[in-house]
Amino acid sequence: MHSPTPCIRFDDARDARIGLPEAVFCEGKPLRALKTLLERFAEPQSAPILFTRLAADVFDGMPESLRSAYDYDALSRTAWNRSKPAHAQGRAAIVSAGTADGFVAREVSRTLTYLGWSNERFEDCGVAGLWRIQGQIARINEADVVVVVAGLDAALASVVGGLTSKPIFAVPTSVGYGVAEKGTAALYSMLSSCAPGVAVLNIDNGYGAACAAARVLRAVFERSSC
Amino acid sequence: MHSPTPCIRFDDARDARIGLPEAVFCEGKPLRALKTLLERFAEPQSAPILFTRLAADVFDGMPESLRSAYDYDALSRTAWNRSKPAHAQGRAAIVSAGTADGFVAREVSRTLTYLGWSNERFEDCGVAGLWRIQGQIARINEADVVVVVAGLDAALASVVGGLTSKPIFAVPTSVGYGVAEKGTAALYSMLSSCAPGVAVLNIDNGYGAACAAARVLRAVFERSSC
Amino acid sequence: MHSPTPCIRFDDARDARIGLPEAVFCEGKPLRALKTLLERFAEPQSAPILFTRLAADVFDGMPESLRSAYDYDALSRTAWNRSKPAHAQGRAAIVSAGTADGFVAREVSRTLTYLGWSNERFEDCGVAGLWRIQGQIARINEADVVVVVAGLDAALASVVGGLTSKPIFAVPTSVGYGVAEKGTAALYSMLSSCAPGVAVLNIDNGYGAACAAARVLRAVFERSSC
Amino acid sequence: MHSPTPCIRFDDARDARIGLPEAVFCEGKPLRALKTLLERFAEPQSAPILFTRLAADVFDGMPESLRSAYDYDALSRTAWNRSKPAHAQGRAAIVSAGTADGFVAREVSRTLTYLGWSNERFEDCGVAGLWRIQGQIARINEADVVVVVAGLDAALASVVGGLTSKPIFAVPTSVGYGVAEKGTAALYSMLSSCAPGVAVLNIDNGYGAACAAARVLRAVFERSSC
Amino acid sequence: MHSPTPCIRFDDARDARIGLPEAVFCEGKPLRALKTLLERFAEPQSAPILFTRLAADVFDGMPESLRSAYDYDALSRTAWNRSKPAHAQGRAAIVSAGTADGFVAREVSRTLTYLGWSNERFEDCGVAGLWRIQGQIARINEADVVVVVAGLDAALASVVGGLTSKPIFAVPTSVGYGVAEKGTAALYSMLSSCAPGVAVLNIDNGYGAACAAARVLRAVFERSSC
Amino acid sequence: MHSPTPCIRFDDARDARIGLPEAVFCEGKPLRALKTLLERFAEPQSAPILFTRLAADVFDGMPESLRSAYDYDALSRTAWNRSKPAHAQGRAAIVSAGTADGFVAREVSRTLTYLGWSNERFEDCGVAGLWRIQGQIARINEADVVVVVAGLDAALASVVGGLTSKPIFAVPTSVGYGVAEKGTAALYSMLSSCAPGVAVLNIDNGYGAACAAARVLRAVFERSSC
Amino acid sequence: MHSPTPCIRFDDARDARIGLPEAVFCEGKPLRALKTLLERFAEPQSAPILFTRLAADVFDGMPESLRSAYDYDALSRTAWNRSKPAHAQGRAAIVSAGTADGFVAREVSRTLTYLGWSNERFEDCGVAGLWRIQGQIARINEADVVVVVAGLDAALASVVGGLTSKPIFAVPTSVGYGVAEKGTAALYSMLSSCAPGVAVLNIDNGYGAACAAARVLRAVFERSSC
Amino acid sequence: MHSPTPCIRFDDARDARIGLPEAVFCEGKPLRALKTLLERFAEPQSAPILFTRLAADVFDGMPESLRSAYDYDALSRTAWNRSKPAHAQGRAAIVSAGTADGFVAREVSRTLTYLGWSNERFEDCGVAGLWRIQGQIARINEADVVVVVAGLDAALASVVGGLTSKPIFAVPTSVGYGVAEKGTAALYSMLSSCAPGVAVLNIDNGYGAACAAARVLRAVFERSSC
Repeated sequence: MHSPTPCIRFDDARDARIGLPEAVFCEGKPLRALKTLLERFAEPQSAPILFTRLAADVFDGMPESLRSAYDYDALSRTAWNRSKPAHAQGRAAIVSAGTADGFVAREVSRTLTYLGWSNERFEDCGVAGLWRIQGQIARINEADVVVVVAGLDAALASVVGGLTSKPIFAVPTSVGYGVAEKGTAALYSMLSSCAPGVAVLNIDNGYGAACAAARVLRAVFERSSC
Repeated sequence: MHSPTPCIRFDDARDARIGLPEAVFCEGKPLRALKTLLERFAEPQSAPILFTRLAADVFDGMPESLRSAYDYDALSRTAWNRSKPAHAQGRAAIVSAGTADGFVAREVSRTLTYLGWSNERFEDCGVAGLWRIQGQIARINEADVVVVVAGLDAALASVVGGLTSKPIFAVPTSVGYGVAEKGTAALYSMLSSCAPGVAVLNIDNGYGAACAAARVLRAVFERSSC
Repeated sequence: MHSPTPCIRFDDARDARIGLPEAVFCEGKPLRALKTLLERFAEPQSAPILFTRLAADVFDGMPESLRSAYDYDALSRTAWNRSKPAHAQGRAAIVSAGTADGFVAREVSRTLTYLGWSNERFEDCGVAGLWRIQGQIARINEADVVVVVAGLDAALASVVGGLTSKPIFAVPTSVGYGVAEKGTAALYSMLSSCAPGVAVLNIDNGYGAACAAARVLRAVFERSSC
Repeated sequence: MHSPTPCIRFDDARDARIGLPEAVFCEGKPLRALKTLLERFAEPQSAPILFTRLAADVFDGMPESLRSAYDYDALSRTAWNRSKPAHAQGRAAIVSAGTADGFVAREVSRTLTYLGWSNERFEDCGVAGLWRIQGQIARINEADVVVVVAGLDAALASVVGGLTSKPIFAVPTSVGYGVAEKGTAALYSMLSSCAPGVAVLNIDNGYGAACAAARVLRAVFERSSC
Repeated sequence: MHSPTPCIRFDDARDARIGLPEAVFCEGKPLRALKTLLERFAEPQSAPILFTRLAADVFDGMPESLRSAYDYDALSRTAWNRSKPAHAQGRAAIVSAGTADGFVAREVSRTLTYLGWSNERFEDCGVAGLWRIQGQIARINEADVVVVVAGLDAALASVVGGLTSKPIFAVPTSVGYGVAEKGTAALYSMLSSCAPGVAVLNIDNGYGAACAAARVLRAVFERSSC
Repeated sequence: MHSPTPCIRFDDARDARIGLPEAVFCEGKPLRALKTLLERFAEPQSAPILFTRLAADVFDGMPESLRSAYDYDALSRTAWNRSKPAHAQGRAAIVSAGTADGFVAREVSRTLTYLGWSNERFEDCGVAGLWRIQGQIARINEADVVVVVAGLDAALASVVGGLTSKPIFAVPTSVGYGVAEKGTAALYSMLSSCAPGVAVLNIDNGYGAACAAARVLRAVFERSSC
Repeated sequence: MHSPTPCIRFDDARDARIGLPEAVFCEGKPLRALKTLLERFAEPQSAPILFTRLAADVFDGMPESLRSAYDYDALSRTAWNRSKPAHAQGRAAIVSAGTADGFVAREVSRTLTYLGWSNERFEDCGVAGLWRIQGQIARINEADVVVVVAGLDAALASVVGGLTSKPIFAVPTSVGYGVAEKGTAALYSMLSSCAPGVAVLNIDNGYGAACAAARVLRAVFERSSC
Repeated sequence: MHSPTPCIRFDDARDARIGLPEAVFCEGKPLRALKTLLERFAEPQSAPILFTRLAADVFDGMPESLRSAYDYDALSRTAWNRSKPAHAQGRAAIVSAGTADGFVAREVSRTLTYLGWSNERFEDCGVAGLWRIQGQIARINEADVVVVVAGLDAALASVVGGLTSKPIFAVPTSVGYGVAEKGTAALYSMLSSCAPGVAVLNIDNGYGAACAAARVLRAVFERSSC
């Protein structure tokens, strides 16, 4: 019984080309391939790298020598060897509806931190208690870009979209059951938002939302610093 | 070429049994059957009857003598020969998100009026402008039961559900396009509402929401008058 | 490896605002967050709280000192520290189709009991043996509000809806296989009920049905006592 | 601009092989092909033939000489040149829920008549008024095979399935709106019936249900006459 | 921690009413309820009973004293205390496409045997090798009713439907992957069969197909013996 | 009221690059754009071009001078200014299930003719009468590539796939109703074919099947002529 | 026959609150309501307003006096009384795949122009001819934000997403047939884009994409001008 | 407790009839049946056989004597007793988008090798870094047939389809999450490809793609060698 060693063609020029370095999406990749990759980027001179969807039991199964080379977070299932230098300006607000959405909200936060952008989380802002979002909106509007994370009916995206003039990205989560199971209800709700200009990412795609936000932050601050 | 005359078995005892008289859902019924029914209930001694989903072009195609026997409303596509006596107490609030939802909201209103229950409509309360629903909520809470009508993301149901303690029924509408087309997004959103105890009707089923509200109003007022 | 302590923003005013205290939906919440919450409400002075979807293996994994502070039920996966005071009047009937629907029917029952409302269960009333529901209907009609719980074809909702004048809420269950798997057939059937005024909750949402019933019971009895 | 004359390969031996002669499903066939076929079977010596889904405006557009060769029914959209000889024994009961289901119920009836089998229709038996089906069930149980036709929640199939020991076929109809639109809710409900041994046909497939019933009638009566 | 003992309302009169005794569908029922039921019917005087979807690991977990009271089959997941007396005449043919469909085909067979009807299985008749079904069709046509069991494209149902005049029931199986996963492709294909009069059961519903076949066998043989 | 003139960027090098010239898919294109394109290719020196999905009423509305420059076929809704030179060898077999599938089968045929490849149609080969396909299979196997066109259950693809060793492409058609409406059942069935190596095109995509067949014919005959 | 005059609650403060004035979505609104709105904003002193999804036959049916007050475009179905003042800096690139996508691409363009933002369209850039997008990418990268409009497989979004560092919004269109009908394939493809940070709008939602782009342009240029 | 020994009817003549020997799809087959089959083909004189979807834990559970008779590959889950003789000419290119698609790409490769056809894999060619596919396309075009394997948006199929004139088969993979979960997005995208003549297999059906490619290779090389 034998399987070929995975050969992986990295898009090393991606950072130069689109301002976002390649990341490794770990779900579905064979264990052997993941180990090879973790080893490659554990070496001192290697470029910064971000691993996403790296399950805790997979990471915990790696040798201690390898694990110690990474900053790993179990809730968001992310790991990096080192983050990029922090930008002087620019901040993202990450607004989420419930505690169960935390694994996605934290993936947004960790990815932005890795990319060097400051960010702040506003948790438990579900609209069934409107005072929760209303008490935070002034502070949220001080950010340069807003990411809304919600499952179930995802009504939070429409409410926030009607209260901010900032670029806004919405991430449906797979939190829920029945028709909301796997995030379909939240995705449909966000795509149908009655607030204008709310752009949507795939279900649970916190990484993508962070990249979209980073594209905006770069447009605002790299330009104005010219 | 010949077709059989439709023979229709009325559930005449329905009112006595469940407090709601039978109504005629006209969509999909052959023209000949509709005419027969309209004739039957145009006669002076006939019981009160409500026709729903009776399209304007169908109604307009009936002879004037028949049309004059009915109170017809084109927006809600409803007609009745005469409404039931008005109840002394009890009022429903009908809250809708946008102008395009009017055809359903009005079906709720007309059905309640036919059943003898007072009701008030609150239009254009979509949450992209939160002040709209917030400005009306005190008045809405004076009603005994609340019906929310919305298409697209249907976020209004969750927001209202978090602001009222009254029995609340939500009707998704087929207003929208893309993933919201035909009301699927709104239906899923309402069923997944983060506000507790929001009960849902089929898409565009204003008639059903009015019946659900009438069941509640009857429970409240017929009981307390005993 | 580290994860942030969850910070949870409680909607403490919810009971005052909508007559229903906040509950904790446990599915999908990290273990650490659940433990924090169970600890918080185990303290003597804490407000009444209801935990739903709290799996037996999760609850059993908590320390005995914590478990003893709660009334836990494995079938419905609910726990409370203490229930609210029982109301003097008002009763709900909970009608279910088969034994397999019991986990949802019991969630309805437990939630109502927690909220202080009396309730009675009518099990095994599936319409393939019509005598079962017909033998119970008189007793069911003595209740103030009716909840129907069914999976598969959910035909029970339509039959009961045609036999009672009371407010009626229908909960589809995820019981079934093939096209009925996960409750889609039951949900669609209930939303399409030929009986007027049957309002529907999300699949397996026994908690929501209890809240909807409680809104009605409150409307009937808090009003009439004024 | 030119189009080829349709060439059609008839399965003339079908009747001998499976006891059911080929029928012509007209929906989607080009007008020219339909006219050719109608002409072919209008000739005196031609075999018996049944046309299904032959829309009234299509049939009405044919020359009078052609139309007069057929027995056409607008509601069921069926036409035949002549029916097969009537069998001495054997009868089917066709039970339908509402007036709007009539176009399918009549397709069942017309197809059975064409095939020579006696049949009786029981209309307006929807379960929201249980007395309607209960008043007819004794008579229905005198038939040799039962066909149930219903849209919306299709609860009728389960109720009848629990009240008869006869072979039973269920046809969902496209009657309804929202989640019931195009018959999906009815199809799912019938396939999930809690009554054992209810077999289902495609949505609106009255022709297929009649063929299934005819297969059974043939098994019962051709055998016993041996 | 406590859960209520399940109380089960048996439809004992079902056999007298519809010719099919009640069976116990075990999937989704709590372990405690299953044990109670197995105990109840293990007693000497109890009526015949069939358990379906009784997983091997559940049955194996019961005490030996209980297990010995039943005839259990692991592939079909069925158990009975004793079968009904065999009928003198009447035979069903069960035709299946591939080895993986065996768990359903055997559920058909076991249920028919339990009900007292003779039956024969024709395995591995998939149409990608047409000779397989063609070599068996003469023997299949000697049966009184035919059940076709297939997953994937379920093309077997149409081919058999065009080669037999007997009543024919089709059971889609959940065998397959991609668009065929969980049996959707097979279900749609069977419902759309180009062969007339093929009636369809829910996915994997071998029990239902056996009941449908038994209804037909009863109609043929109980009648002719009169 | 004004609209911009459409500017269209032709992929003129496509023929050189992939052996297939660009074609114009007309559905959804504004009338003005279609007219501009028809005018452009009506000129004597213009390259060969194929228009697909060009509805008869659109084509008939063009001026006679334009129409006379094209070979138009109403059934397949295709038009060309001139076809490419015929190849000396190579032939495709196009097998279809029913008359209603003709509009797709003819699109396959017309596209192949336009591309210079000989082809033959085998109509009305549906498997409900197996003799139809069996009587043609020897002749079909003389072709170099096979295209199967079918709606409904699309069982024909599996049967042909098990009877030929030639490359085989399957096109589901939108012919059917209920679960077969719009071709979903046929698409799923073909993708799940139990015959190995059947490759599938989008629903009604006769043009794509012809291109796939042309890719194969080119591989066989351009190579062997080297 | 009478219908109530629509009463519309404008969100007049929306521009001040979120930087985007309210627009009127015309699809599904009754004719009478549209006329009232067009009249209201035709008056000299009225605020700027944008009507979207205003069908040509509806607009053409309005009196000339009303029509002359608006700048109407039939392809995008948009009308405005006057546009907002043009910004000094900031430009959007609108990249589309095929001619049939033009109606959406133009809605993006018209909405941006109305909001005062410069924009440029890049049509016919479908990836089946890669040279088309590669020849334009340098010019596209000079813009401040990119909108990609595509139907069918929507592969263009991923290709552009991998070639630009700018904020990028993707709009699936309803262009296509079979599985691509109504834009589902394009929506799914864009949400699943392998290029990081591509954010998605609802199907055909050109208006929403323009608003998302305007949020970004405002963030870049209103900030940098401070 | 007993289960019948599976009896399997092999289509031994398949190779002679369609040029492809029967293979054994192991998923869903009972363990006992798999063992019987592995034993049967482990004998020295047995014909060549391919097992697909044979999970590593199942294979590893077989006795060493049985395992040693097979060439097993864990990634592709395939095993053969011996491969067919290699053909002198003919080569397939297998192009895949990401590392996670490797399990399908390798099934294509292994199946082709088993069938005796040379093949080469081109991994990690996702279009988010266009240079990856562009650097390989010349070499890919040297093959006789191309197979594209991709999940998520599957944009690779359209890009390759526009760069090669060779017969091309596309296999969507179940790689992805959210709307891409289980391969639906990839399947829809490939079926909607804007490149002409891309034919599609079921999700994860690497075996089918290899068979389709083998049909083409046989057509090209068995013919030209005549």
